[in-house]
Amino acid sequence: MSARRPPDLVALTARLVDVPSVSGDEGALAGLVASELAAECPPCELTRLGHNVVLRGPHRPDRPSIVLAGHLDTVPPAGNERARLRDDRLHGLGSSDMKSGLAVMIALAKTVDWVRARANLSFVFYECEEVSIERNGLRKLFPEVPHLSTADLAILLEPTDGAVELGCLGAINAKITARGRAAHSARPWLGENAILKAVPFLARFAAMTPRPVSVGGVEFLETFQITTAEGGRARNVIPDAFAMNVNFRFAPTRTPAEAVAELRGMVPDGFEFDLVDAAPPGVVRTDHPLLVELLGRFGLEKRGKQAWTDVAQFSERGVAAVNFGPGVPEQAHQADESVPVANLARAYEVLHAFVSEAPAVRAEDGRGAPA
Amino acid sequence: MSARRPPDLVALTARLVDVPSVSGDEGALAGLVASELAAECPPCELTRLGHNVVLRGPHRPDRPSIVLAGHLDTVPPAGNERARLRDDRLHGLGSSDMKSGLAVMIALAKTVDWVRARANLSFVFYECEEVSIERNGLRKLFPEVPHLSTADLAILLEPTDGAVELGCLGAINAKITARGRAAHSARPWLGENAILKAVPFLARFAAMTPRPVSVGGVEFLETFQITTAEGGRARNVIPDAFAMNVNFRFAPTRTPAEAVAELRGMVPDGFEFDLVDAAPPGVVRTDHPLLVELLGRFGLEKRGKQAWTDVAQFSERGVAAVNFGPGVPEQAHQADESVPVANLARAYEVLHAFVSEAPAVRAEDGRGAPA
Repeated sequence: MSARRPPDLVALTARLVDVPSVSGDEGALAGLVASELAAECPPCELTRLGHNVVLRGPHRPDRPSIVLAGHLDTVPPAGNERARLRDDRLHGLGSSDMKSGLAVMIALAKTVDWVRARANLSFVFYECEEVSIERNGLRKLFPEVPHLSTADLAILLEPTDGAVELGCLGAINAKITARGRAAHSARPWLGENAILKAVPFLARFAAMTPRPVSVGGVEFLETFQITTAEGGRARNVIPDAFAMNVNFRFAPTRTPAEAVAELRGMVPDGFEFDLVDAAPPGVVRTDHPLLVELLGRFGLEKRGKQAWTDVAQFSERGVAAVNFGPGVPEQAHQADESVPVANLARAYEVLHAFVSEAPAVRAEDGRGAPA
Repeated sequence: MSARRPPDLVALTARLVDVPSVSGDEGALAGLVASELAAECPPCELTRLGHNVVLRGPHRPDRPSIVLAGHLDTVPPAGNERARLRDDRLHGLGSSDMKSGLAVMIALAKTVDWVRARANLSFVFYECEEVSIERNGLRKLFPEVPHLSTADLAILLEPTDGAVELGCLGAINAKITARGRAAHSARPWLGENAILKAVPFLARFAAMTPRPVSVGGVEFLETFQITTAEGGRARNVIPDAFAMNVNFRFAPTRTPAEAVAELRGMVPDGFEFDLVDAAPPGVVRTDHPLLVELLGRFGLEKRGKQAWTDVAQFSERGVAAVNFGPGVPEQAHQADESVPVANLARAYEVLHAFVSEAPAVRAEDGRGAPA
């Protein structure tokens, strides 16, 4: 185990928050991360590809391979660009999602004993997770960095508030369009009001509650939401079209094709259905020995990941993956986003122990019991 | 009565259709109208103000004053810019609304005996009726041309298919906004979906049918329509606002303030109400002797005007006003807009007789009976 002191995690997170990195504009932050890593990780291979940074330690075939991954980008700012420490919480854009996770990754990279660690370690910092899968940096890295797809375990330092969040929801977006017929609004009987035609369809969604689905001992809540709606051409014209985006988040028990089929079945005759995008869910892998160890050894709470994360991309490539990070899921994308300071050291300590030494070794020094 | 032959009404309407005059761009058509009128109306005063043309005949205090009025503008084209004669109908943008009415006005101006007519006559051709009241050319003319406000009767040659359409509907537009709370769409319980919150409000409008209101022996249908609706910020965010435009057309029994109060009373708590605009209705004046004569003498059908027209502006200034024109109301703003050719001569003949001679005189030449 490394004897190096970890850097000040709060100050490091604040530094990362203070470098803007809205999706597509992660260059400065990627540069900062790369220079932090380059300074103190001599046995490693550091690669920068676009706004993505990959740090790979020495490889030995007798060790499992573990990837730690986090996205550099944030959603757009909302007056919360600067980090501020207040009441034992660090506030600021990305503090929970997920610059506190990046800070833990950097601290681990600087303090882990790469040669003696129980695993071959790689760290991936990538761009454009908050936008579309087409722009997702991790997706672009998989063909360029083959060892990412052959790892035994990937840990995404997404906000989980210190729990292990298994799998992830899949998501589809579909544009459902009600068609009507335009007419002068003083003679509505000559037309058909597309907005009012959609009322029974909308009412069905208004009456829904999240649908619980259990898998691997954790629960996911499936949700159907109308997230955007737009119709009408002028104030005095009966609207001839009303387009609604339905966002369906589904549990890992379902494939994207099954989710599409279910949503399509809810669309009334005469409405148009256009699939906008489909993201697969992330597989819940409670059978995996490294995951069993991570959960049991540190007494971590386990939950289903109630969101889409890049666990799905690792799942698609057969890599067991989980979410575990210091950020708080409910803080993600909030204007007053923050992270409890105490979460930072806790995540660091768990991961440092986990990647440094296997439990049989750790039991000997009396630290093997659940915390 | 003038012995001059009326011009070919179909050819004249086609010429007017072929000169584009979308609201705000009526200059060329105003020029054509002014030159047509200037050529053959020597005893008259011709005034052009902006894209508005006023022709006023000689004034004698022993005659009533009648204004004939029509707007020059059309809604934007829809591939129907050129006039085409087919199956006894003239097709083209504005053919019904209301260049056939303008053609009848020009023909009347050219053939009426201005000196011996039974009334002091004025013709008003004006811009921007199809857009907002703020841009309405007639509204701009009232302070500049005082005799418009002191007339005994105004006839708007709006499309009525040869009936007399009394009064006109009032109209208000209001923006009703449901407010919610944004959240990640995977955790809708942390937010409030503004679109789905509006469903009971929308459902109320979907269940409505036009509400009949009788006044002065004619019927109006009051209508509430949601004409535009827009909400949501992104596909993966619970929408925090959903704004709907409600268009309420109300009968002349109601003031705009009463209509606003009724609509406001339908808005649920927690929704915002913003009045966008309010147009007063046109008064039904069946008591007026000139109107009683117009209806009885020519056996014209009478109806309520199921739309807003500038009858309302004359009403506001105390001038009795009606709609009577060759266009067909249901054709207005249609992509395949047309007017039956037979309507043109009929409207011309009725109006020529009506403005030329009072019925006592006409009875002597055997033409006083209803047609």
